[in-house]
Amino acid sequence: MATNQLQANGERFWDTIEASAKIGPGVAGGLRRPALSDSDKEVRDLFRRWCEEAGCTVSVDQMGSMFARREGREDLPPVLVGSHLDTQIAGGRYDGIIGVLAGLEIVRTLNDLGITTRRPIEVVNWTNEEGARFQPPMVAAGVFAGVYSLEWGLNRPTRDPGPGEGKTLGEELRRIGYAGGVPPGGRDVDSYFELHIEQGPELERTGTSVGIVTGGYAVRAMLVRVKGETSHTGPTPMEKRKNALVGAARMITAADDLGWDYAGSDGKVTAARLTVSPNLAGILSDHAELSLDLRHSDPAVADEMLAELEKRLAEAARRAQVDYEIVERWTFGDERFDPDCVARLREAAEALGVSHRDMLSQAGHDAYHMAARHPVAMLFSPCGGGITHNEAENTVLEDQLPAVNVLLNAVVARAER
Amino acid sequence: MATNQLQANGERFWDTIEASAKIGPGVAGGLRRPALSDSDKEVRDLFRRWCEEAGCTVSVDQMGSMFARREGREDLPPVLVGSHLDTQIAGGRYDGIIGVLAGLEIVRTLNDLGITTRRPIEVVNWTNEEGARFQPPMVAAGVFAGVYSLEWGLNRPTRDPGPGEGKTLGEELRRIGYAGGVPPGGRDVDSYFELHIEQGPELERTGTSVGIVTGGYAVRAMLVRVKGETSHTGPTPMEKRKNALVGAARMITAADDLGWDYAGSDGKVTAARLTVSPNLAGILSDHAELSLDLRHSDPAVADEMLAELEKRLAEAARRAQVDYEIVERWTFGDERFDPDCVARLREAAEALGVSHRDMLSQAGHDAYHMAARHPVAMLFSPCGGGITHNEAENTVLEDQLPAVNVLLNAVVARAER
Repeated sequence: MATNQLQANGERFWDTIEASAKIGPGVAGGLRRPALSDSDKEVRDLFRRWCEEAGCTVSVDQMGSMFARREGREDLPPVLVGSHLDTQIAGGRYDGIIGVLAGLEIVRTLNDLGITTRRPIEVVNWTNEEGARFQPPMVAAGVFAGVYSLEWGLNRPTRDPGPGEGKTLGEELRRIGYAGGVPPGGRDVDSYFELHIEQGPELERTGTSVGIVTGGYAVRAMLVRVKGETSHTGPTPMEKRKNALVGAARMITAADDLGWDYAGSDGKVTAARLTVSPNLAGILSDHAELSLDLRHSDPAVADEMLAELEKRLAEAARRAQVDYEIVERWTFGDERFDPDCVARLREAAEALGVSHRDMLSQAGHDAYHMAARHPVAMLFSPCGGGITHNEAENTVLEDQLPAVNVLLNAVVARAER
Repeated sequence: MATNQLQANGERFWDTIEASAKIGPGVAGGLRRPALSDSDKEVRDLFRRWCEEAGCTVSVDQMGSMFARREGREDLPPVLVGSHLDTQIAGGRYDGIIGVLAGLEIVRTLNDLGITTRRPIEVVNWTNEEGARFQPPMVAAGVFAGVYSLEWGLNRPTRDPGPGEGKTLGEELRRIGYAGGVPPGGRDVDSYFELHIEQGPELERTGTSVGIVTGGYAVRAMLVRVKGETSHTGPTPMEKRKNALVGAARMITAADDLGWDYAGSDGKVTAARLTVSPNLAGILSDHAELSLDLRHSDPAVADEMLAELEKRLAEAARRAQVDYEIVERWTFGDERFDPDCVARLREAAEALGVSHRDMLSQAGHDAYHMAARHPVAMLFSPCGGGITHNEAENTVLEDQLPAVNVLLNAVVARAER
């Protein structure tokens, strides 16, 4: 290992991970800390205190995203490094969290060493990356990068069940005291670095320490609204039925079949969320709403899958005698990351003697939106068994520390540029 | 038309239908009056007042079912006549209601004519026939007939969304003041007659005035619990996915296919209700709960369909890589109605010159449970377009009055027996 490389304090880093894991515990060892919940407020307060104790100035933008700034020698556009502290409803201790707290560890390590970089460094915690309470996910990074308007972002309604349903992201930001005053984005940023657990099994399977992420899988997502007709479940003959639930089920089956058709080249099609109304025993349902997405490493193949999916949805609707409409569409993941930023990660890994391989990310990340406007690179660390978005997410410090050190040296190299 | 037949007062009968239709209005001309809601209380109060004004004594049993008794010349087991005043969440003005208010009209007509029958007549309003708030449907008639225990019936939880979810039928009975003191059933009943709209298009299609219901379609219903595994929607390869939503969707598709296989002999398979958890964008779901039922006029064919359905559910689960369990099963509709009671209806129709045909009921009715223990017959009246369990349910007095008169004369004949 080259001796001129900076080394993070692994034990201190892991202590912050453990402290985070105490806030918003789930029922099975993981976390239930959805965006703008009381526990999200609590972890934000802790993160703010840590950053201020490390000498940073913390600002909060109007979408609630937090920026902990460590000044540089010159007043240049900063290097951003971070991820998100929110989790899924039954999420893990590491997804997103490791990226934010690695950013904090970079600041602390530089403090220990008395290093001031040329450019400022800002550690970022993005609001609502997961989308567990507010759709879409990655909404605050999207607003920062100008992909969504601020007004639209603040008006995203919760999907909380019960009487709280429909409260907006803006209302929930005010409730927990994180409706900041800084307009999101609209300023020069040197670059954005994000460390994240892989959310897949490849690093572990191949015994590789880090993944240098060069871009994302192309994602095509849609929201489908199915329109049927209510009638009695008993006497209505099959040929008169327009059951929206059957329509949606046939669409899901067709989508899953398509996923299997492309499984050989690691394509996927997912049905993640279905709501049906009135969804009662004794009556056929007249409405359903279905979230579908597909992913492939090659954007051209993703587009081919999308065309085929649309054909099969039409056929499924015909078979179920229902009408439908694709009411929303999202496309992301086609971006390739910035060659210089990616090279900094690769060089740091080489210099540290950390094994690495180039990869594409299969999940969505805040980095995708940032890449639309700024130089971006991502780094993957191993993820035990490839399990994620699950309380059983697991890893150990020795699997994460190499990635933290690669990130540290790449960020410092870029900040010295 | 024979002149010795009794005639109901159609205008008065229709006024009661119209008065009922003002209580718990839906959004599209129908009714939203689920069991033990505030509007159910309101219509119960009105029904009680009407019955008392007609000289009946109204008692309420511990399941909240109401019995308006008109004494006979002798203290013999009574003839029961009725149905239910509760509706689906988006239900019609006639389903169930016509049967209860026809019973009231019988009492009023007998009052007008100064007739006292040999046996008492009791007009019944059964609690929660629809099952819109409490599963299963027909629960109070089931307790009356000894099919379910009182304790089990009172502990049925609501499926209301929001904070009210889980309140029990017993609690809701107390809330609206209809937790009566009379133990359900356990007493001699001469017979039970129920007039109901057909809930199908056959009478209208064939231009027949009434259907003499000789029994029901055999129904086999089940609640299926699907068990998958949460994981991230993005990176998880198809072969590692255990998405409970896909499992349930493949089961629904297989069930619907089976329905079509038997459509030629008027078999049906229905998926009515599906709940999925956590059902969020970004994560595969690990739990789903699915209500399925199948119906056929021939119980042996229904059993054959059930065996085939179970085979296909197993195959669907295998394809989706999920586990599942059939956690509840219901069988009903195999009963044939009482020959004497059925004959009374047929004879009354003949004597009145009302066109009639024998039919099987395809929907579940309180009469099914009653038939397990008591002599029962049902009468169908036309149902506009066959549309039911829908706010668009429609009919007119002239299509209903022949059935009311047939019911009147059959009930009186039986009560004179």
